[in-house]
Amino acid sequence: MSGVWGNKIKLSIFGESHGKAIGITINGLQPGIELDLDYINKEMERRAPGNSELTTPRKEKDSVDILSGFFNGKTTGSPLCAVIHNTNTQSKDYSRTKDLMRPSHGDLTGYIKYGGFNDYRGGGHFSGRITAPLVFAGAICKQILESKGIVIGSHIKRISTIEDESFNMVDLKEEELKELTKDAFPVLNKSVEAGMKEAIVKAKDEQDSVGGVIETAVLNLPIGLGEPFFDSVESTLAHLLFSVPAIKAVEFGAGFEIAKLRGSEANDEYYMDGDKIKTSSNNNGGILGGITNGMPLVFKVAVKPTASIGKAQNTIDIEKREVSKIEIVGRHDPCIVPRALPVIEAVTAIAIFELMQ
Amino acid sequence: MSGVWGNKIKLSIFGESHGKAIGITINGLQPGIELDLDYINKEMERRAPGNSELTTPRKEKDSVDILSGFFNGKTTGSPLCAVIHNTNTQSKDYSRTKDLMRPSHGDLTGYIKYGGFNDYRGGGHFSGRITAPLVFAGAICKQILESKGIVIGSHIKRISTIEDESFNMVDLKEEELKELTKDAFPVLNKSVEAGMKEAIVKAKDEQDSVGGVIETAVLNLPIGLGEPFFDSVESTLAHLLFSVPAIKAVEFGAGFEIAKLRGSEANDEYYMDGDKIKTSSNNNGGILGGITNGMPLVFKVAVKPTASIGKAQNTIDIEKREVSKIEIVGRHDPCIVPRALPVIEAVTAIAIFELMQ
Amino acid sequence: MSGVWGNKIKLSIFGESHGKAIGITINGLQPGIELDLDYINKEMERRAPGNSELTTPRKEKDSVDILSGFFNGKTTGSPLCAVIHNTNTQSKDYSRTKDLMRPSHGDLTGYIKYGGFNDYRGGGHFSGRITAPLVFAGAICKQILESKGIVIGSHIKRISTIEDESFNMVDLKEEELKELTKDAFPVLNKSVEAGMKEAIVKAKDEQDSVGGVIETAVLNLPIGLGEPFFDSVESTLAHLLFSVPAIKAVEFGAGFEIAKLRGSEANDEYYMDGDKIKTSSNNNGGILGGITNGMPLVFKVAVKPTASIGKAQNTIDIEKREVSKIEIVGRHDPCIVPRALPVIEAVTAIAIFELMQ
Amino acid sequence: MSGVWGNKIKLSIFGESHGKAIGITINGLQPGIELDLDYINKEMERRAPGNSELTTPRKEKDSVDILSGFFNGKTTGSPLCAVIHNTNTQSKDYSRTKDLMRPSHGDLTGYIKYGGFNDYRGGGHFSGRITAPLVFAGAICKQILESKGIVIGSHIKRISTIEDESFNMVDLKEEELKELTKDAFPVLNKSVEAGMKEAIVKAKDEQDSVGGVIETAVLNLPIGLGEPFFDSVESTLAHLLFSVPAIKAVEFGAGFEIAKLRGSEANDEYYMDGDKIKTSSNNNGGILGGITNGMPLVFKVAVKPTASIGKAQNTIDIEKREVSKIEIVGRHDPCIVPRALPVIEAVTAIAIFELMQ
Repeated sequence: MSGVWGNKIKLSIFGESHGKAIGITINGLQPGIELDLDYINKEMERRAPGNSELTTPRKEKDSVDILSGFFNGKTTGSPLCAVIHNTNTQSKDYSRTKDLMRPSHGDLTGYIKYGGFNDYRGGGHFSGRITAPLVFAGAICKQILESKGIVIGSHIKRISTIEDESFNMVDLKEEELKELTKDAFPVLNKSVEAGMKEAIVKAKDEQDSVGGVIETAVLNLPIGLGEPFFDSVESTLAHLLFSVPAIKAVEFGAGFEIAKLRGSEANDEYYMDGDKIKTSSNNNGGILGGITNGMPLVFKVAVKPTASIGKAQNTIDIEKREVSKIEIVGRHDPCIVPRALPVIEAVTAIAIFELMQ
Repeated sequence: MSGVWGNKIKLSIFGESHGKAIGITINGLQPGIELDLDYINKEMERRAPGNSELTTPRKEKDSVDILSGFFNGKTTGSPLCAVIHNTNTQSKDYSRTKDLMRPSHGDLTGYIKYGGFNDYRGGGHFSGRITAPLVFAGAICKQILESKGIVIGSHIKRISTIEDESFNMVDLKEEELKELTKDAFPVLNKSVEAGMKEAIVKAKDEQDSVGGVIETAVLNLPIGLGEPFFDSVESTLAHLLFSVPAIKAVEFGAGFEIAKLRGSEANDEYYMDGDKIKTSSNNNGGILGGITNGMPLVFKVAVKPTASIGKAQNTIDIEKREVSKIEIVGRHDPCIVPRALPVIEAVTAIAIFELMQ
Repeated sequence: MSGVWGNKIKLSIFGESHGKAIGITINGLQPGIELDLDYINKEMERRAPGNSELTTPRKEKDSVDILSGFFNGKTTGSPLCAVIHNTNTQSKDYSRTKDLMRPSHGDLTGYIKYGGFNDYRGGGHFSGRITAPLVFAGAICKQILESKGIVIGSHIKRISTIEDESFNMVDLKEEELKELTKDAFPVLNKSVEAGMKEAIVKAKDEQDSVGGVIETAVLNLPIGLGEPFFDSVESTLAHLLFSVPAIKAVEFGAGFEIAKLRGSEANDEYYMDGDKIKTSSNNNGGILGGITNGMPLVFKVAVKPTASIGKAQNTIDIEKREVSKIEIVGRHDPCIVPRALPVIEAVTAIAIFELMQ
Repeated sequence: MSGVWGNKIKLSIFGESHGKAIGITINGLQPGIELDLDYINKEMERRAPGNSELTTPRKEKDSVDILSGFFNGKTTGSPLCAVIHNTNTQSKDYSRTKDLMRPSHGDLTGYIKYGGFNDYRGGGHFSGRITAPLVFAGAICKQILESKGIVIGSHIKRISTIEDESFNMVDLKEEELKELTKDAFPVLNKSVEAGMKEAIVKAKDEQDSVGGVIETAVLNLPIGLGEPFFDSVESTLAHLLFSVPAIKAVEFGAGFEIAKLRGSEANDEYYMDGDKIKTSSNNNGGILGGITNGMPLVFKVAVKPTASIGKAQNTIDIEKREVSKIEIVGRHDPCIVPRALPVIEAVTAIAIFELMQ
């Protein structure tokens, strides 16, 4: 069923892109946690649209209204519900093309699943906008994790075919990760940044879009998070990562490449670093037997190119059941990778937080 | 928490590799379903060890004893519990190396998570053997799905660096899929089979191991399975797939490759095939907005090389906390890809069955 | 954990009595259900305060704002979130007595459970006011059930020691039940009404309060709802009924009285009424083996006297940890039975709706 | 759905009275807990049949076989599955009356719910025998609770119309409770015991049965267990209590009687007993706002008279859909109260254990 996730914490999400509001209720937060609202707002801004020429001009403030579970600056231990009111909604943009199912979107599947009763405006409950409440929940989890020394950071590993370097999975520095979170377009090798941005602008100019890959790392996790069956770290993370619209692939550690190695190459050998147990390689991305092993947790996700493009495409009119052309004229990102990145970090924080309860 | 999965059906798994028995309880099966026990046994045999020179010589019958929920050849609607007794366990193999944490295994993470109280023999609850009950549950789901016309099939897409062709995601034939399930080493392009097997035997001879990639497809799914948040088809499948030991990556449709395409290339355009809505490409692997769109559901998983190898490796002695050498002498598969394949199909069947409730 | 209930439908509740808003998110509603908002408002009014001399003068409009999951007058199938803004909150009433733990309230247990971080104003998340969102959710379930012919009705079985008659559990008329729902103070035997009201007013005049018993019936249920372990009809209903503040006892059918009978008296014998299977008595209250048997489902709940009274009581000051006197001066109902009645019906509707999915 | 219960611990139950085996899998037990198997067996014996003239002569050893999650005398942290093989099953007793729906049993509701595919022998999955695995799980929880100083005890409050005294809810002694658990027929006032037993034997001699009431108390609970919505202590306990066959009513503290009191009488006033906060009465049975308040937790349950009686009753033949007479000739308890008592304690232990996670 849609809408609720988690076992020890439970998230309940709601909202449609052009409805009254979107929001989330978080259950299971400890009482007495002081929330840094500036921190939360900064995370919200990282995801918010309209910040540069690389994103949609739809400018949305995304200011969060906490309705419950928060009193005198601290969590109460009761369910914390936060809503974001939808203000800048140009619903007319969408009603004209209501019956034209946008390729690569949830339009058709939503229409059939919900018998045509779904709120189609702006993608409705399928909109990437629904990730804003996840960023809010993630910002809370992230700051709690940080207070325990756990750091999450990401970079843009690829835009279209332009590749950044990969994280050094064995010896990843905390400072490096933290630095990345301040950057609206974080890459490890600065020399690839211009080319990546160019690819995005070029796609935009051609009424087209590009996708990419995000690589995320989590440092200073305790050994022992996760379960063998069925809530491995990979399962828990992947469940949330694949809930983020446009994510089509997830790989941990060396991922698909590990399958090319011999066991003797792939196996991460142990050694003692003082009184700490470490591995000399990290092809398993910090997870063994579904459980964290204390090494950096590292994974990559593939973000498909924005489905909404201005270029003419073949589609069908769902009412008439006949083929039609569609040229999408709304305000859309030519590449959602930079804005998806804080969402990936948010759901990572949520998943880790759940596993730590 | 470990052990229970599902919302509308609920699986409860248990067992350790060298304990008395392993098993599973399936909740939520409709009453009156006639179970084909031969079908189930055939699936169990596909996963069972000792069938060829490519697998471990540990010969285990894996015969299933159904304890409840099954009466007069049919499901009763009550919880169906099945156990597989562990018979051929050579526990002495393991006790000698109890304190030596096998690299790339769950030994260390399990030891620390469970404070050393876990059953270490043969990997205990982390053993690949625990997938046998999943194959049992999958065999039930699979035959119910087949009675509705839904077909699941897989092939070995890669062993080490030797690649098979990929499924034709747009025009995949039911017969082709069914044919694959009869083959113990299914590939699309028969010319790669010998090379793949050779790579496995060579690794075995060198006390080493290889990994690979499995590609799985599901045909004839109705449109509308899955949910936008948080139980997308990708989330539901990935949750179970990443519970299977050794799986480190999952990609749907074009997966990581879709991120290299422009939106105009990646988007799957619609057309009418008679009264059926189809897409002319299938880069999304049959899933849009987290929901099935009626096209073939296609995904790939990466299987890491068997962690247990005879070659000497560096590890630590967990009691002494010092470095040691380990040469694993138990009976292990040089490549678990062929035996992992029916497990992948089984959890696919389980996930689809859950989504169809 | 607090906040989420249900398996096939899932409710997520939130809010504090004097916070910004209270509300609920309902997951699992079918798309395309036309909601009768007048019907919902009427149910909200049944629970709302300030309607007569028998209730608190706190006048609260309780108007519901549906934020999501509702489009063009119909459910969309996505999570439906509704909030009720808190408007008439006199927080000053409460701050003065913040450290005085009101006897028979959740003040002390909440304070200790949440380490003093709970929102203490007006009972916070423990307030009876939090049942308003349950009435909203119940009103939706109730109208869906009614469209299937299922009718829920209740009467005040007892106020203090003044007893009404009991439902005729064998031959209960649909019209009679429906009639009861129109009455703000429903009793079967009209002659007891005046005495009951007098008892309430007398208690009020003496700065005291009274409790009572509510009897509820559900007609036209199909045979087969509920499960043997662990989600019997009794379990599912009792779980929600005991979530309603002030409920301390629940009995089904003849309840505690059935335990006084011999088996030969207690057993409900079967007979055929045309092609319908019926029982000639209904001591089991329409539930056998945890499952509905098609007879009227009947149960009673005990509502304790309002804990907040004006009369002086001994209590402790939680900060000073010393004994103190308390005279509660807020606006409180001398008897919550009439307002609890629609809440009991609401959670009954929710429980039945869950069991019917 | 049937079969799984719990949030932080999860129980998965299975089995039919005359199938191969019944059992339970417990998820969420901490690793390293030493289990006292004698303690467990003693609890199993308390519930086992055939111990006196008051129970069924069906003699069943109920020896438990732990299949997993238990290694070297301690829990491993993995799912712990235990089975009890059905040995003394006289299935022929039942097949003769297969189509005759026993009044007050789950025969009819089970038949219709499961479309006639349920295992009808001896009540199948509806049998009281299925509570044996609950007693096993409860025995584990109980000994863990005891190691934390928490004590559970019960007495027979009523058989038929013969009443025992009630617990002193304010000043209940630990030793008194412990003493009760050693008694196969525990009452507070020894003078009522003979009359109670006589009532049972008389009912048996007349091919009839009697019911009764059990009162249970839990001492030394910490303040703060339970949640306001929806997992109050009352909700959590009642959910499991109403899963036990034959339980038709549950009341906490003064229960239905509290509704007869004025607020000024019912409210439990606070005082300081040294540095402990206590209440001078305990009408709320140790639970306020759904949360334990540190006072003795006390509740009563009503057990209906055994449904299976030798006396002739009217019933229907479900195949022929016509009225018939039934005289049940199997081996049945004339009163299940004494054997239900350890089951009530077991599910109490399970519920408390869940709330303490």
